[in-house]
This record gives sequence, C-alpha cells and structure tokens, in this order.
Amino acid sequence: MLPQTRRTPAGAAVLRGDITEAIQNAVVEELAAVGYGRLSIEAVARRAGVAKTAVYRRWSSKLELVLEIVSGVASQKLSLPDMGSLPGDLTLFLTILTKALRHPLASQIIPDLLAEAARNPQIAETLQQALRNTQHEMGVLVIQRAVARGELPAGTDPVLALDLLVGPVYWHLAVARHPLPNDYVPRLAKAIAAGLRG
Amino acid sequence: MLPQTRRTPAGAAVLRGDITEAIQNAVVEELAAVGYGRLSIEAVARRAGVAKTAVYRRWSSKLELVLEIVSGVASQKLSLPDMGSLPGDLTLFLTILTKALRHPLASQIIPDLLAEAARNPQIAETLQQALRNTQHEMGVLVIQRAVARGELPAGTDPVLALDLLVGPVYWHLAVARHPLPNDYVPRLAKAIAAGLRG
Repeated sequence: MLPQTRRTPAGAAVLRGDITEAIQNAVVEELAAVGYGRLSIEAVARRAGVAKTAVYRRWSSKLELVLEIVSGVASQKLSLPDMGSLPGDLTLFLTILTKALRHPLASQIIPDLLAEAARNPQIAETLQQALRNTQHEMGVLVIQRAVARGELPAGTDPVLALDLLVGPVYWHLAVARHPLPNDYVPRLAKAIAAGLRG
Repeated sequence: MLPQTRRTPAGAAVLRGDITEAIQNAVVEELAAVGYGRLSIEAVARRAGVAKTAVYRRWSSKLELVLEIVSGVASQKLSLPDMGSLPGDLTLFLTILTKALRHPLASQIIPDLLAEAARNPQIAETLQQALRNTQHEMGVLVIQRAVARGELPAGTDPVLALDLLVGPVYWHLAVARHPLPNDYVPRLAKAIAAGLRG
C-alpha cells in the first residue's frame, strides 16, 4: 500500500535530477527511522542531498510534506479481481493486506502516523480518507459480489465485514508483531466467511 | 486497561506526599499530550510539581519510566467471569475491550507506544508481554471454556480466536477511529462465534 515510486533510495532520484521525488523518498526514510515527532526538515534535506531551501520552496512544513505522501497512497486504486467465490475473494484480500503490512516501511510508518493522528486532526482526517478510499472500497466490493452470488444475505453489514477482514491481520502483524502461523490466511478467510454467513 | 491509580491528576498525589505516584501520573499525562518521542523529563517534573532530580533519583531515563508503567498494566489480572455460553463470554470480553479502547488516555498512549515499539525493541518486548499477560490469557480462557461446554471443537486455534476477538474492535476504534455502530458488540460476538465454529 506504499507508492512504488517512493521505494527507490532518495539519492538515486537526485542523480536523475528529480528533487521533488528525492525529498519525498527522504521523508519516507526519515519517518521510518525516527518517526514523525522527531522528523526534521534539516535531516530530510540532508538525506535527499538537497538544500533546506529546496524543501521549503515545495512544502511549507513537515506536516504538509507528510500529508501529501499519505494522500498519494490514498489515491492509488488497488484492483481486486473477482476470484469467483467469497473464500477466494477473502483469501486474495487478506494476501494483499498481509503483504502490505509486512513491508518494512509500512510496519514502521503506519504505527507512527496513527500515533500522530491521535493528536493531530489533519493527519487523522487524511489517514481516514486513505483508509476509506482503499480498504473500505475493496471490503464493500467483496461483500457486494458475495451477495450477488447468493453466498451472503443481502443485509450483510460491510462495516462489520471490513473490521473482520482487516482487524485480525492488522492486530497480529502491526500490534502483536508476531509472524503469521502456517495456513493462517486460508483459515482466517474460512472463519470470516462462516462468521459473515452467521 | 490503564491502572486505576494513575487516573488521578499528578498534582493531587503530590499534595498527599506521594512523589513517585505524582511522577507516574505526570508521565501518563505527558505521553498523552506530546507522545513518547517528545516527552522530556523536564516537562514530567514540571507537571508533577517536583524537581528534575526527584525524577532521576527514581528512574535513570524516560525509557525506564515508561517501561515501568507499561509493566504495571501488564501485571494487572483482569477477571473474566464465566457467562455460561460462548456468545456470553465473547460479549463480555468485547465489552471490556471496547471500554478500555475508548478511554481517552488509552486512545492516545497505546498508538504512541506501538509506534515507538516499531523502533525500540525494549518497548516492543514489554508491550508484547503486557498483551500476552492480559488479552492473550483471557482469549485462551474463553476458548477453553467453550471447548469444555462442547460449543467449539477441541482443535480451535486460540491465536486465530484472539485475533478475531481483539482485531476488529481495535481496528475500528484505535485505527479507523470511528464510533461503534448500534448493536456492534453483540453482532460481532455472534459473527466470531459462528466463525470459530467454522
């Protein structure tokens, strides 16, 4: 769920002359290393190999910089091909989610931004929008398909379904921070399908 | 899941002459206000109404201070009376969890410590132990009772069960940060019971 373009090291982008991209990469790396609270424009500029003025010419504050990166993630539409059955769709969704949550940058930056969201309404709002535009839409899609196939009753609550889809994996990987046991994803998909059928 | 003794304002404890408690209360309040990264011993001392030396006489660093408070939470055993049925036990567990996650201090401090845990192995270890000693034990207990009553098969995986119990509510309240819809807890309890039965 992190933008692909931001995975290249900050230095490489500067060599190509793309200062904006170099700064954005440096922000992601600094966020992972020290967190939002301790992130400084000075350290970002140093890591990107640019002058501090180059950063301030583009963004007025670190808040603005970080919000733009989060919004960038939000605007990425992830496709979820129809797997032909509810267990199939659930397994695909969970596989994508577990992969995203195991990404080293995600596992450092997401908890940090969530912590910041607890005291910064702008970050909270931007993150919530990112969640709505990605996971929420995919969750609703999975439920709609299953209802259309007759696998779930028409009144299935997409909010409860999404919490069941995202919550357990998020809790396991991002909070308890344990590796996933064998066969976890298919077993969870089966449990969620049974839970939603009631 | 926050210790009761820490809910009184820092000042009140100083009036009673309990400097240690005043400092611990001040740490919790500072953590909620500025987060671990920006927390300073100086601000803690100021809030507690004591000299900085009073803090350093008791704890060598802010890390030590914060770890002791987290461990204090971990050592609290929460009782989970037998409600006579799996849906009853699940509903009680979820009710306790949602109450704890809605506590204003919890909703600020937990995400912050988790963010810190992503880059500080000592905090990660202490938090994981706190989780094991509280939620995990309660989750296992709920499953064991249900297996004994014949409500769940003997091979029910307590790890998957715990993820289903804690994850959705945690995701909804602490990450997506939405209020819980009507009847959420009993509906979730019903879905989890059905999911675990498979």
